[in-house]
Amino acid sequence: MKNVVVESDLLNNVLSNISPLDEEAMEQARERQDSLTKPRGSLGRLEELSIQIAGIKGGLPSIENKAVFTMAGDHGVVEEGVSAYPQEVTGQMVMNFLNGGAAVNVLASEAEARSVVVDMGIKAEIEHPELVDMSLGPGTNNMVKEPAMSREKAVKAVESGIKVFQEIYNEEKIDLVAIGDMGIGNTTPSSALISCFTGTDVEDVTDRGTGVDDEGYNKKIDSIKQAIETNNPNPEDPFDVLSKVGGYEIGGMAGVALAAASKNIPVIVDGFISGAAALLAYEIEPEIKNYLIASHDSVESGHAATLNHIGLTELVDFNMRLGEGTGAVLVMPIIQSACSVLTDMMTFEEAKVSDKD
Amino acid sequence: MKNVVVESDLLNNVLSNISPLDEEAMEQARERQDSLTKPRGSLGRLEELSIQIAGIKGGLPSIENKAVFTMAGDHGVVEEGVSAYPQEVTGQMVMNFLNGGAAVNVLASEAEARSVVVDMGIKAEIEHPELVDMSLGPGTNNMVKEPAMSREKAVKAVESGIKVFQEIYNEEKIDLVAIGDMGIGNTTPSSALISCFTGTDVEDVTDRGTGVDDEGYNKKIDSIKQAIETNNPNPEDPFDVLSKVGGYEIGGMAGVALAAASKNIPVIVDGFISGAAALLAYEIEPEIKNYLIASHDSVESGHAATLNHIGLTELVDFNMRLGEGTGAVLVMPIIQSACSVLTDMMTFEEAKVSDKD
Repeated sequence: MKNVVVESDLLNNVLSNISPLDEEAMEQARERQDSLTKPRGSLGRLEELSIQIAGIKGGLPSIENKAVFTMAGDHGVVEEGVSAYPQEVTGQMVMNFLNGGAAVNVLASEAEARSVVVDMGIKAEIEHPELVDMSLGPGTNNMVKEPAMSREKAVKAVESGIKVFQEIYNEEKIDLVAIGDMGIGNTTPSSALISCFTGTDVEDVTDRGTGVDDEGYNKKIDSIKQAIETNNPNPEDPFDVLSKVGGYEIGGMAGVALAAASKNIPVIVDGFISGAAALLAYEIEPEIKNYLIASHDSVESGHAATLNHIGLTELVDFNMRLGEGTGAVLVMPIIQSACSVLTDMMTFEEAKVSDKD
Repeated sequence: MKNVVVESDLLNNVLSNISPLDEEAMEQARERQDSLTKPRGSLGRLEELSIQIAGIKGGLPSIENKAVFTMAGDHGVVEEGVSAYPQEVTGQMVMNFLNGGAAVNVLASEAEARSVVVDMGIKAEIEHPELVDMSLGPGTNNMVKEPAMSREKAVKAVESGIKVFQEIYNEEKIDLVAIGDMGIGNTTPSSALISCFTGTDVEDVTDRGTGVDDEGYNKKIDSIKQAIETNNPNPEDPFDVLSKVGGYEIGGMAGVALAAASKNIPVIVDGFISGAAALLAYEIEPEIKNYLIASHDSVESGHAATLNHIGLTELVDFNMRLGEGTGAVLVMPIIQSACSVLTDMMTFEEAKVSDKD
């Protein structure tokens, strides 16, 4: 952890279990890649992915069970008029996730990933047997006027993510995790958080979210600037930033990421909001960087600042801007293929193929 | 077809069945995308793919059966020392494909695609129940000294690809096709072919293939230039170019692509050699363009010339340069996901989600 002590045994225990990658496993994976029936290095990024994941897992990686955690929260700042969609959409989309009708459901089904839907604090009251209820309240406060949440709730948001992950993991081992979000207005706190952590100007990390018009866009920038001025978050203290200009689901996703990394599981980052959560996790524990895989370069222009700051390179660039974990789940088959190449291909010797002259 | 009449009923029948995309189906797909529970356009490239494939198939696309055609051929020009690997590797790798040990097998298995391995004319004699034998001879002639093949064989190579596709298709309907190659030395004729068709300088479309050293690279460029000078291929006549500086597997892949398009099936282009085949197919029948999906931007720098000339944009850029169809098969799940989003997501109305203000 950076300069901050947080009194949470749960969190501190997780952080102490995020280790550097297993260099020996990576070296073995590298050697094996070089012995497989293909010109050395000819599978490019797939080879790199397989070596990273061998380092994460400490041996030849096999990916069977996959899960996407879609975490939902509402945001007090929407009363400033920063979003193109009404706030009730958060709850309606959570119902849509639970009924299997959203993009993340379709993509998770294609990737054969379990979809976990978590209420981290939305306004609507939803009863559904599949909904994981971790609600910290009916949305955050309006950060333009006061901190989005108390410091206690900020810690609790990350702890809640850890708990959700651990519960699902204890039911069934997971080999690959994706983090995604739902929350009308949540590009606004994400921009604030990314601006604070990366030191980038608010304008450069603020875009149009679900498609706000010029007036809304200007309000959005003003609101973020005002929120930062009012609350004066300390960039050296991740929980101070989360409490002052963050969101419940952002803290929750960071918790899932940290907990997954502590169990040697790669974490796929989705787009802008998921990226803000990955950045928060990175500020809490920089070692998590090696466990992260960036799925896509979001249309939200600020996502690049996040990826640059952590030092990640996206896998694809499909002009996506949906969230929910969609981009992360979309690339799961690619990551799985990268691992299968390493484990299942024959070597030059096994296949009796002549090597390079 | 361009300016050339070819006396092949098989080919002409296929060409006459490659139609423009179904505009009405595309419009319906576009409208449906706009009614689904996500901000309009927020799935970017996935939406475009689904609309293209709706246009190809003439309705809401469903992708179940997939196949990758890996076509192998040997090349007389290897006697000039243009490749880093010995020629016997072609046959050895074909055996590896048939035994399931190569990268394309592993990736096809992940994508649940059938792997079809075709001998279009390799030097080794291979007996295997799964091998599709369409051999036009034990490799092409050395194009530096004479045409790589006769005009009759060039036509027959494309016809053979058509026949292979039709045979497999008649056994089991296919919804998505990938074309891939195997052939030591085959980046050399591919560069020649791409240079002829696109009018790009040989140097700008010639790279290091499987990893040839400086000496081999210079020989490669010299050989291509000499082959073009000796044979003087006519860029306006695709079969003249194929016969003089092409390869059997390149003609075969073009045949598969044309036959698939004639059955309203999207064709995924792999890398450099597969791209040369797509370019050949495009020169034979430009209408095929709308049926093509470029999977990745190969490390072979000349691939960009092919994609630009046809007007395609690759899906991913993973620094791959293996061939076999690997890149094409790798993106099959992405294409399938794009189609599933269109067919399986709920609309705002169905899911009772409020639309934009």
